[in-house]
Amino acid sequence: MSLSMDSVNAMGYDNFINTFRNVVEHCPLAAASVWADRPFSSEKDLGEAFGAFLDSLSNNGKEGVLRLHPDLAGRIAKSGTLSKESSLEQSQAGLLDLTEDEQKQLGERNKLYQDKFGFPFVICVRENKKNAIIQGIKERLEHTKEEECEIGVENVKRIALLRIHDIFQ
Amino acid sequence: MSLSMDSVNAMGYDNFINTFRNVVEHCPLAAASVWADRPFSSEKDLGEAFGAFLDSLSNNGKEGVLRLHPDLAGRIAKSGTLSKESSLEQSQAGLLDLTEDEQKQLGERNKLYQDKFGFPFVICVRENKKNAIIQGIKERLEHTKEEECEIGVENVKRIALLRIHDIFQ
Repeated sequence: MSLSMDSVNAMGYDNFINTFRNVVEHCPLAAASVWADRPFSSEKDLGEAFGAFLDSLSNNGKEGVLRLHPDLAGRIAKSGTLSKESSLEQSQAGLLDLTEDEQKQLGERNKLYQDKFGFPFVICVRENKKNAIIQGIKERLEHTKEEECEIGVENVKRIALLRIHDIFQ
Repeated sequence: MSLSMDSVNAMGYDNFINTFRNVVEHCPLAAASVWADRPFSSEKDLGEAFGAFLDSLSNNGKEGVLRLHPDLAGRIAKSGTLSKESSLEQSQAGLLDLTEDEQKQLGERNKLYQDKFGFPFVICVRENKKNAIIQGIKERLEHTKEEECEIGVENVKRIALLRIHDIFQ
């Protein structure tokens, strides 16, 4: 659909929430909160409002946002319950089409990551290809929980910007 | 289903989020955040963790939580898209079975409320019957936005406690 910023600024909250409900994965609260910041001047401005919502959350809240994300190429992708947006993103990065070895490696590192931090590895897959992702998770495993929460949320912001851009196309 | 607190405390986050995803209406972020507070000693303790999540939100975030709630006996109920929990709660309060006059009155007051505050009227309908609700919305219309945001969130907490109790039955 093609959407103008004027029509977005004129939306009631129900319509706005429906339109932007998955800009942050499985977190319609983000859209429901951001509606209060109308009017928006640009996609960037709208994206920054989503960023400000994420920044306003407590540490538990930020970790919660990460926990609403699917495992990369994991269990959820296999069972076909990925959100439309995640499915497209993971498929574009080549994550739905891994070799057996790659699947095993990513699966093992994902599990180490979740056991260490208590939330899944979140990366903006549209800005990374599968090799960078498999390498990236190895490096990020060395971080502290606080560092990874922050890096994860920064990736959620980048994902949000790209999803907002798609909605306006 | 019958559930023990031990089994809840042993849940991974995916399972926990699925179990408690609608304790706060359409806001799985609440459950995803609260998981970090394990172990819980009682339903009350778990309910307080949900309350602390709500209290930790910014004003925009709290208003966002309210915006995720359906209109009472309004448009959403009529179109049959209420969440399972809301549908049961509204039906028990007699809200899905109003006379034409009551519907009109509640509809008009709901609209006034939303126009004034920018979020829907939220009340714990299981603790109120339809007459108290129709009267309550009239009184709450006199409040400021800040007062109503606070009262709304307190009602969300009471709804959450009752929904948690149901999950353990």
